[in-house]
Amino acid sequence: MPNTTLLYNKIPKGVPVAGETLKRVVDDSFNPETVDLNGGVLVQNKALSLDPYQRGRIRDPSISSYSPAYEVGKAFRGYAVGVVLRSDSAKFKPGQILSGSWDFSEYVVLTEEEASSAQILENKEKLPFTTLVGAVGMPGKTAYWSFYNIGQPKKGEAIFVSAAAGAVGQIVGQLAKREGLKVIGSVGSDEKVKFIKELGFDVAFNYKTESTAEILKKHPFDIFFDNVGGETLDLALENINTFGRIIACGAVSQYNVLPEERYGVKNTFLVVGKQLTYRGFIIGGKDLGNFYEEVPRWVASGEIKVREHITRGIDNGEAFVAMLKGDALGKAVISLE
Amino acid sequence: MPNTTLLYNKIPKGVPVAGETLKRVVDDSFNPETVDLNGGVLVQNKALSLDPYQRGRIRDPSISSYSPAYEVGKAFRGYAVGVVLRSDSAKFKPGQILSGSWDFSEYVVLTEEEASSAQILENKEKLPFTTLVGAVGMPGKTAYWSFYNIGQPKKGEAIFVSAAAGAVGQIVGQLAKREGLKVIGSVGSDEKVKFIKELGFDVAFNYKTESTAEILKKHPFDIFFDNVGGETLDLALENINTFGRIIACGAVSQYNVLPEERYGVKNTFLVVGKQLTYRGFIIGGKDLGNFYEEVPRWVASGEIKVREHITRGIDNGEAFVAMLKGDALGKAVISLE
Repeated sequence: MPNTTLLYNKIPKGVPVAGETLKRVVDDSFNPETVDLNGGVLVQNKALSLDPYQRGRIRDPSISSYSPAYEVGKAFRGYAVGVVLRSDSAKFKPGQILSGSWDFSEYVVLTEEEASSAQILENKEKLPFTTLVGAVGMPGKTAYWSFYNIGQPKKGEAIFVSAAAGAVGQIVGQLAKREGLKVIGSVGSDEKVKFIKELGFDVAFNYKTESTAEILKKHPFDIFFDNVGGETLDLALENINTFGRIIACGAVSQYNVLPEERYGVKNTFLVVGKQLTYRGFIIGGKDLGNFYEEVPRWVASGEIKVREHITRGIDNGEAFVAMLKGDALGKAVISLE
Repeated sequence: MPNTTLLYNKIPKGVPVAGETLKRVVDDSFNPETVDLNGGVLVQNKALSLDPYQRGRIRDPSISSYSPAYEVGKAFRGYAVGVVLRSDSAKFKPGQILSGSWDFSEYVVLTEEEASSAQILENKEKLPFTTLVGAVGMPGKTAYWSFYNIGQPKKGEAIFVSAAAGAVGQIVGQLAKREGLKVIGSVGSDEKVKFIKELGFDVAFNYKTESTAEILKKHPFDIFFDNVGGETLDLALENINTFGRIIACGAVSQYNVLPEERYGVKNTFLVVGKQLTYRGFIIGGKDLGNFYEEVPRWVASGEIKVREHITRGIDNGEAFVAMLKGDALGKAVISLE
């Protein structure tokens, strides 16, 4: 019973490379039945979440940022859901589902303190583990908290969502439809256009083959949910209505770009005259309101549809790289079931 | 008794030109004693306010913006304070001080409706007319409302103010000192550095001779009061603390720049990770809270110092152009007393 880990092997320059930046390693000497827990907990991971923010953490550690860089030569990390196999701690017992952020290995030993900072999930709705790190995990919380708290949506308004087929974008669009908004979404393939139309988006376009500038001019909006930054943000600033809100969730177009090649946004001066509120956030530590009463139920009933791009087993980082490139349709996740 | 007007003569390309963009014209046939009021009010202007936002209104009217373009061939307009000389309306009587936005002429005839949208000032503190369009007028309200409502200042925090010697900046810096903040200010001349140090700024520098990047790195801050946009905004994004607030008041560095030459801001992606709130506003229509109970009193007592750059009489636009170039020290105003 060996333990397989996704190793963070080398700091990438630009786009990460599977097998080089990240690499699959196997520890044959690992034995889950005998591994020493030192008062902690042994968790068998069931789903590992692949998210754009992780790109920011595989950087040269001398570059400071809001979250520390991951350590080269150790396991790649991120949001995960697993089941307690053994416990040295009275606080945890076998069979519990734990959700938190830790090593991307099949098995992880958490200290009691680490385990205590994780969340014990009831999962009354019996959702799949992949969904527990997706629509009901960090991306779902991200969509839910920011759409209501920063977006301040009002019925009859319009919202533009970039990377609309992604883990966060697909939830935002469906929440917006529930609230009676017109929803415009940009994606990077015709297949994704088809997918978000099925979700109920009113306007869906492939930014690689259609003109974002023309479409936004035709469909003005009050809220911009920004997952990508760069030129799309510039065009959004140009076309957003007065008193618009910009939910700054990510800037995936800029993550693999060297500082000197970063896109320069020319329309920031419009923030003044349009009286915009442009606000960034990190989901950790936010008051999630009714998230757990509402979202798992909506997902279980199908009222909110989720699409996941599932990779089975730990690979050499191909799934992570594909997610960054936009090749995954839906929430990118590694399943270990 | 002729009437002199500052005429808006020609749409500028880039920097406005005195005598060409704006031009002094005299109407010799004007007679304030006999001019027909048609139910309105005759106001003798005492002070005309020169403000950066006016640059945005002398543009090609085909370019849409938050406020309509001024009409070429008519009077240049803006905030003004004057005294009622004659009135056809029962609502107004001679001697009253009116504050509002209208033609930059020595005399203006306002309709009853226009006069009703103006403010009647009591001026209990007997402040000079120039101050009524400055610290106690639009720039003072701009500073006061946004510093508290967007800035959300907390004692012990730090604020960085660009164009800190200007009409708005000088008030913001002094409000911030009152609230126990560390205040950093950038200005465009050594004379202005001296001036804002006299106002109590903790750090004052001339961005033309010192490195903004280095100074901001040495003095991190929680609030950025942005009057200038462009590169200063980019450096502020880089150096502002997590949970920082950016008060987007103006972008004077970009007003005279053609669209293709606009500065591209590369650090907008930091809005996400630093969880910044970046908010623009226009002062019209805002709830000013205790502004009138506090600011006129503070100015009268000298607790808030004001510096005005006063031009006597209507010129050919030289004073306006100088204000845009940053050549005025303090609030730029035309006095007609």
